[in-house]
Amino acid sequence: MPKNVPDVPTKIMPPANPFDTSYLRDAGSEDKLKEECGVFGVVGVADASNFVALGLHALQHRGQEAGGIVSYDPAAGFQSARRFGYVRDNFTSQSVMETLPGELAIGHVRYSTSGAKGQTAIRDVQPFFGEFAMGGAAIAHNGNITNAVALRRELIERGSIFQSSSDSECIIHLMARSLQQNIPERMEDALRRVEGAFSIVAMTRTKLIGVRDPLGVRPLVLGKIGDGWALSSETCALDIIGAEFVREIKPGEMVVITADGVASHFPFRAQPSRFCIFEHVYFSRPDSILGGRSVYETREAIGRELAKESPVDADLVCPVPDSGTPAAIGFSLESGIPYAMGIIRNQYMGRTFIEPTEQIRNMGVRLKLNVNRALIKGKRVILVDDSVVRGTTSRKIKEMILDAGAAEVHFRIASPPTAWPCFYGVDTPQREKLLAATMSEEEMREHLQVDSLKFISLDGLYRAVGEAEGRNKKCPQYCDACFSGEYPVIPSDQVTQGFEMKPAAE
Amino acid sequence: MPKNVPDVPTKIMPPANPFDTSYLRDAGSEDKLKEECGVFGVVGVADASNFVALGLHALQHRGQEAGGIVSYDPAAGFQSARRFGYVRDNFTSQSVMETLPGELAIGHVRYSTSGAKGQTAIRDVQPFFGEFAMGGAAIAHNGNITNAVALRRELIERGSIFQSSSDSECIIHLMARSLQQNIPERMEDALRRVEGAFSIVAMTRTKLIGVRDPLGVRPLVLGKIGDGWALSSETCALDIIGAEFVREIKPGEMVVITADGVASHFPFRAQPSRFCIFEHVYFSRPDSILGGRSVYETREAIGRELAKESPVDADLVCPVPDSGTPAAIGFSLESGIPYAMGIIRNQYMGRTFIEPTEQIRNMGVRLKLNVNRALIKGKRVILVDDSVVRGTTSRKIKEMILDAGAAEVHFRIASPPTAWPCFYGVDTPQREKLLAATMSEEEMREHLQVDSLKFISLDGLYRAVGEAEGRNKKCPQYCDACFSGEYPVIPSDQVTQGFEMKPAAE
Amino acid sequence: MPKNVPDVPTKIMPPANPFDTSYLRDAGSEDKLKEECGVFGVVGVADASNFVALGLHALQHRGQEAGGIVSYDPAAGFQSARRFGYVRDNFTSQSVMETLPGELAIGHVRYSTSGAKGQTAIRDVQPFFGEFAMGGAAIAHNGNITNAVALRRELIERGSIFQSSSDSECIIHLMARSLQQNIPERMEDALRRVEGAFSIVAMTRTKLIGVRDPLGVRPLVLGKIGDGWALSSETCALDIIGAEFVREIKPGEMVVITADGVASHFPFRAQPSRFCIFEHVYFSRPDSILGGRSVYETREAIGRELAKESPVDADLVCPVPDSGTPAAIGFSLESGIPYAMGIIRNQYMGRTFIEPTEQIRNMGVRLKLNVNRALIKGKRVILVDDSVVRGTTSRKIKEMILDAGAAEVHFRIASPPTAWPCFYGVDTPQREKLLAATMSEEEMREHLQVDSLKFISLDGLYRAVGEAEGRNKKCPQYCDACFSGEYPVIPSDQVTQGFEMKPAAE
Amino acid sequence: MPKNVPDVPTKIMPPANPFDTSYLRDAGSEDKLKEECGVFGVVGVADASNFVALGLHALQHRGQEAGGIVSYDPAAGFQSARRFGYVRDNFTSQSVMETLPGELAIGHVRYSTSGAKGQTAIRDVQPFFGEFAMGGAAIAHNGNITNAVALRRELIERGSIFQSSSDSECIIHLMARSLQQNIPERMEDALRRVEGAFSIVAMTRTKLIGVRDPLGVRPLVLGKIGDGWALSSETCALDIIGAEFVREIKPGEMVVITADGVASHFPFRAQPSRFCIFEHVYFSRPDSILGGRSVYETREAIGRELAKESPVDADLVCPVPDSGTPAAIGFSLESGIPYAMGIIRNQYMGRTFIEPTEQIRNMGVRLKLNVNRALIKGKRVILVDDSVVRGTTSRKIKEMILDAGAAEVHFRIASPPTAWPCFYGVDTPQREKLLAATMSEEEMREHLQVDSLKFISLDGLYRAVGEAEGRNKKCPQYCDACFSGEYPVIPSDQVTQGFEMKPAAE
Repeated sequence: MPKNVPDVPTKIMPPANPFDTSYLRDAGSEDKLKEECGVFGVVGVADASNFVALGLHALQHRGQEAGGIVSYDPAAGFQSARRFGYVRDNFTSQSVMETLPGELAIGHVRYSTSGAKGQTAIRDVQPFFGEFAMGGAAIAHNGNITNAVALRRELIERGSIFQSSSDSECIIHLMARSLQQNIPERMEDALRRVEGAFSIVAMTRTKLIGVRDPLGVRPLVLGKIGDGWALSSETCALDIIGAEFVREIKPGEMVVITADGVASHFPFRAQPSRFCIFEHVYFSRPDSILGGRSVYETREAIGRELAKESPVDADLVCPVPDSGTPAAIGFSLESGIPYAMGIIRNQYMGRTFIEPTEQIRNMGVRLKLNVNRALIKGKRVILVDDSVVRGTTSRKIKEMILDAGAAEVHFRIASPPTAWPCFYGVDTPQREKLLAATMSEEEMREHLQVDSLKFISLDGLYRAVGEAEGRNKKCPQYCDACFSGEYPVIPSDQVTQGFEMKPAAE
Repeated sequence: MPKNVPDVPTKIMPPANPFDTSYLRDAGSEDKLKEECGVFGVVGVADASNFVALGLHALQHRGQEAGGIVSYDPAAGFQSARRFGYVRDNFTSQSVMETLPGELAIGHVRYSTSGAKGQTAIRDVQPFFGEFAMGGAAIAHNGNITNAVALRRELIERGSIFQSSSDSECIIHLMARSLQQNIPERMEDALRRVEGAFSIVAMTRTKLIGVRDPLGVRPLVLGKIGDGWALSSETCALDIIGAEFVREIKPGEMVVITADGVASHFPFRAQPSRFCIFEHVYFSRPDSILGGRSVYETREAIGRELAKESPVDADLVCPVPDSGTPAAIGFSLESGIPYAMGIIRNQYMGRTFIEPTEQIRNMGVRLKLNVNRALIKGKRVILVDDSVVRGTTSRKIKEMILDAGAAEVHFRIASPPTAWPCFYGVDTPQREKLLAATMSEEEMREHLQVDSLKFISLDGLYRAVGEAEGRNKKCPQYCDACFSGEYPVIPSDQVTQGFEMKPAAE
Repeated sequence: MPKNVPDVPTKIMPPANPFDTSYLRDAGSEDKLKEECGVFGVVGVADASNFVALGLHALQHRGQEAGGIVSYDPAAGFQSARRFGYVRDNFTSQSVMETLPGELAIGHVRYSTSGAKGQTAIRDVQPFFGEFAMGGAAIAHNGNITNAVALRRELIERGSIFQSSSDSECIIHLMARSLQQNIPERMEDALRRVEGAFSIVAMTRTKLIGVRDPLGVRPLVLGKIGDGWALSSETCALDIIGAEFVREIKPGEMVVITADGVASHFPFRAQPSRFCIFEHVYFSRPDSILGGRSVYETREAIGRELAKESPVDADLVCPVPDSGTPAAIGFSLESGIPYAMGIIRNQYMGRTFIEPTEQIRNMGVRLKLNVNRALIKGKRVILVDDSVVRGTTSRKIKEMILDAGAAEVHFRIASPPTAWPCFYGVDTPQREKLLAATMSEEEMREHLQVDSLKFISLDGLYRAVGEAEGRNKKCPQYCDACFSGEYPVIPSDQVTQGFEMKPAAE
Repeated sequence: MPKNVPDVPTKIMPPANPFDTSYLRDAGSEDKLKEECGVFGVVGVADASNFVALGLHALQHRGQEAGGIVSYDPAAGFQSARRFGYVRDNFTSQSVMETLPGELAIGHVRYSTSGAKGQTAIRDVQPFFGEFAMGGAAIAHNGNITNAVALRRELIERGSIFQSSSDSECIIHLMARSLQQNIPERMEDALRRVEGAFSIVAMTRTKLIGVRDPLGVRPLVLGKIGDGWALSSETCALDIIGAEFVREIKPGEMVVITADGVASHFPFRAQPSRFCIFEHVYFSRPDSILGGRSVYETREAIGRELAKESPVDADLVCPVPDSGTPAAIGFSLESGIPYAMGIIRNQYMGRTFIEPTEQIRNMGVRLKLNVNRALIKGKRVILVDDSVVRGTTSRKIKEMILDAGAAEVHFRIASPPTAWPCFYGVDTPQREKLLAATMSEEEMREHLQVDSLKFISLDGLYRAVGEAEGRNKKCPQYCDACFSGEYPVIPSDQVTQGFEMKPAAE
């Protein structure tokens, strides 16, 4: 290979539309893991793109930066619209939606996991589209391809021209080069070259296609709506369109849906499944159903488990809103300590305000959260949060609570310490930025300067999600790499670039 | 008077900026009473307008349609920016905020109570500004003037030219015609002509001014920030800027604040106060302090009172989010029935989606709320809501709960039946649209088709807000006209236009 | 009067819509006098506002900064739209035009003569509207009120609240305070208080009204279209809508037009007329008719007169495009020297480009004009321009011509030296910025470094516009104050603020 | 090949930015041939993209629909901005231009010749960019590839994914598949596969590249600016940036320009050149230099030749502005009949207005042109225009002139009858829409109902452009296919789709 070949191609990034400012991330949420994407598709109903817009709206929590919809109509052909910002702001006007006619449509909402951070172009917004010799196809991808850099280099050397900086574009180029005679088979060909996690919703002129990677890391569910069908990342998006939840797509399964029904097959070598356990903790919406139970109930169970593992004498159990709420309710129910909203969330949050002067500390968090001062004053408070990532927000919340006159502050965290980055489609900081990568639980408590800090144990978490025996150490039932450092798929691009995996013996 | 004089002048309404679509009201909230306005002002701190932007953001729940800020700087003079949409979308950019320099600024967020509904012009957005012989002044008004139509007619006949359709503009014209030699005295002059409810924040080149009407219907509080001062509709907006809550402005009080301090006087004839009791029930934010106690605690107390008055055997107490939450927690604590989030709110709500087909009922509510189906199934559910206005949303929520398989649905409402319109600055439907204006509690239960429906009693509500003896029938401690039909100020314009008040004997 | 009363009220200027950038003036035209305004009105035809949009488009040369239209329809009432930028960009969309229904409409295009320069607000854009006791009225004003500051102060002291910084708003407040019983009479009342120049188009719910000041400084013409009528600043705007040119409105005349026809009267004391002679030289469009002859022919006659007065031996006569073209053609026809386009105008000019480096001189002019280098090389060139104001552009053009290799450059100017500012509705620099205010013709030639420079004489100009005997010194037939310093109306505000008029003896 | 392979791939067209309306074509210019593109590039100067913006502004007449710039800077990499609308509206703001840093940049302005008409996407706007194994390259193309459909099909079948509907994208895919080791050689490889006309400006990280097709159908010139170099479609764009015109790039020449200078070579088989003769007649700007003479002078010579070939007795020679102006001046100089501006062009034209009622005929033309009625009345008028395409505009102009009272109307056309479509980068109607394709000169005169109509002869045109002997019938010195039907390159895609070429014998 010539020396001047760059590892990752130089980006050409058209400046985003200056009118689109809505893609700016929620202030105050910078200390959370970001779910990367949500996918949704519908076939066999009139105005399919309107259903997709609704579905994406229900999946907005999985990706707030941008969204896109592709539709197909025999008269209009493939049509697409891709925009920065919320679904509600882009896909609700007649003028946009009538450009997306037809009975078949797919859509995608995204955070930027791959792609140059902070300068995502509209070109990186999915679904991606390719025109093949036998017609067009569009695909929307939730997950992350761990050998994308290597694939991209190989494809460019053979003459493919990439238009985005997204890892997902590899799939469409691999499909373009496949010798198979139809699009689903080309997709199988392409996906067998791909490593990592993927839940894909795709479409041709006549077919809606769904695929999950062999480990089933990311969710994908099937729904029935009238005479048509829907594919969605979560069941809550089936609810919004009035579709019936049929079943989860299985790990390694590909479904090809036409007017005639759902054909299922398994193009990959079978493996034990490793669903992402963090979907239970934080990513999925509480009203979605995972493994036959509402995510809300699972989180309440985590709170109960946490109360059993790490009880403490106090006056109030308060959630860090909104994600800590179900676990706080569970903690309160198990412990008998009254549940109260000690922190109020401003529901109008959005862009970052200009901070007037330095005299105001913690402005970022204040914009989003305010302490119920009169309630908290003099109380011993248990704060329940879903996770601790960098610890910056936890620290600010603690200060706000103490400013308001709390007597004691006890943190209870509904997940084990997050000590390893995710390479399967979640936006995590580099390992050295993770608080738990460098500190013990006690060091973290000192760092946060709270009266106590306790995380649920990994076994406790497995019990709460329904594994009565806890975690199977030899063959874990879930992907818990962010807690354990045990990666079910070797992240080969990252290892090439210097990421040090946990020693196998550990 | 010539025959062709129109009662209300023909409107000239420049079409709003077509880029501003954000002012569209939240879908799903069309069945709530709308607080009309929030006001905020700051003096004596650098970059005052940035503080005002933050304050208005914290008061956004009081008015989501539009907002405005006026600032004064000796070099730049008075500057203003008025925009449709959320504070976070308009008053966060450097390019806007640097047009508003100075150490003195006031702001306003609004719903349209007066003004032609549905076609508010930017000209109707406050603060209003007038140039007087002794210099300029800007005012921001929370409340409603009940003799505005008569005042407007009189002013036009004497040569005043109105620029907006807002009732608040009368104040500035009355001030322009006053013979007093300084602006605070002109304002007193003007306000003595005005009937109704008002909490006003105003400014001259050197003074920040706050006034409440003699009954003190709308809230207004004073805060201290560094060497400067702040006036705000609620204490939660003091918290966001790090200001200390000093005290409430008293009914009938005018404060004139300069660098030298706060001067207080009482320009109106003294009357017993009649603060709006609905501020406790719904309008104010739960983390604000009213009467020395957090609004959250008051609402929890309402829930406890409701549980005492109207107990029922059930499996779960669920709030209608988010406004029913504190009362639901109180109901659960009092009754011992577990609290649970049976209905999940989509935090990304905004504009109305295009509904794909008729097969989907209740789309409006579905966009905002989804039932936690797996949790609700087979359960007897108590739903706690803050109020019932038209009853349309209550009905849809009940249907969603039953669709999800609930065994029983019991509604508990944290306010008495809303049977009368408010004329003091709240956007209420006409009386005939209020469910409680035409139906008894039992008729409402039948109409909603629920297993039980109970409202808190008026005495119970008074007890919960801290009046141990309940309501003083001869001289009620609060304005409760929306429940009782007893209006503390006769709404003269409305009576002129045919509104029938409750017979005195009743 | 108290000491702190400002002479001109402090401005409150909402920042203009950031999307409106089109109002930026043409680069390269900064060295011209600016006509301030064009007015247009139509009554008695369906979709009147569409005719007004077309008329304003034809009058765009009279004002490029902003435009506005007000319409009246019995069902919709008065409606208005006011925008920065070109008519073609704002009043061509269905969505805007359908907000302006009815058979009666007026419009206005403007430069900012009064109003704070460089920070015009949308509030300063006409037509202005007022709601009077007997109904609404809108007015559009071309000209300038020379006692506006005094009137404004008086009105504010009596309680009027100004909304703009425009001198024209005085008229509407004077009307609001008139005791007359109908709007045309109130307008007469108001205009009798006003000094200066005005051609006004106004409307009530049923009437289209036109007025010219007693001197008739600014133009106004009457046209017939179908069963309806039109008023326009110039005849070229009648052509575009297919209206027939009926006659000029006379100096001091008011016409009140309804479905029944045109009523004419003369509410002011009669005076000899003083039409602006610069309308012939530059302001009016060449295809308009003034005094029975096309402006084009008058300008060609100016060129012929100039060739007679100041002949020179040369190879080519070239216009400074586009305004010098007719005079250059006249000069060529009279002199027999071939006419050629030695300077080419870029028809896509608009905003100012970012100049890349200092190595490029004269960028501003280059963006708009380019020399036809191959044609000019080695030639003796006569450049014909309409006027010299600051002289900056003339100098740059001379440099471009010499850079291209011209052997000689001779300037011939189609107007006398511009030595005095205009106070009657034209945007002129302060006197000290006018080249001719401080230099003789020969000094100007040296300053511009050209081989010769000649202006037409004042008498020659009068002959060219049709006064065979030249200028009547005792009672000039035109307003030529910008050349002669003889102001037909004393500019009282300016004199108050220190402007020194030419001694009467001179 | 499978039956369902579409000849031209189904388009996927994202809806254009709704804010961009400026790309709408000039009303009234719908009856002209449209030059398709202008290209410009600069290397070796700071802020190269600002120079490119200026150059594109000077080339705006070659393409008004959209423009794009790509720059390269070692720190920022390749950057691009592509927008609908005028250069002046898009590439003049600091915020856009500072995203395009570096000393090397190229740009493009375009009409849509290929690409789906009327629904151009921003994706079709050049320059196109590709990331190759040895680095990135951007190219901008003026011309048209006559075998693009065949190339596209072949490339798709081999796995290339097209992102635009532009024929020019083929070049970048052919480059991606070349086995050459550097980009200029890959470009040679690609261009040897391409048929048709092309003048290309391209760039790598270090090189500015210019190429003309072997026939040299489209222009391309080289300029020197400081220590750097520029490539441009025309010399007028060198003038605007202050660059010196060095020479024309030769037919079949490729220049590769770096900091070290200009390397020239000739990668194609040599052929006699066939420069587009219509560049002289209409496309190029009059101040550009072609063949050592200004285009203005050539057009004046065409007018003189026309006056010799087809004299007529009349009172005035008037141009159809602006393109007929130089020929009209030549006609006047040769014939001695006075030149006059009988038709005035509105310089503010742009979007189409809403036509108020049917009573107005010819609105489209009236918006742009107005007759100088007072001048024309009673005169015998010679109208000189550059060409007749459909004849629709000529007809309307004739009607306007007669409406104004002209005694006679004589058309003189500065080009031969346009009877054949252009396939080399000009937007022409289909052959059956061309007036001259179906009518003789006399039939056209009758159709237009004018007193006389004469076109210049093909030999006369050749003489005017400097070929003293006229056209060489055996080997014409220019491409004149639009007049003669003799196509120097067989338009193979068009022939495949059914276009009938002129029989060789003819």
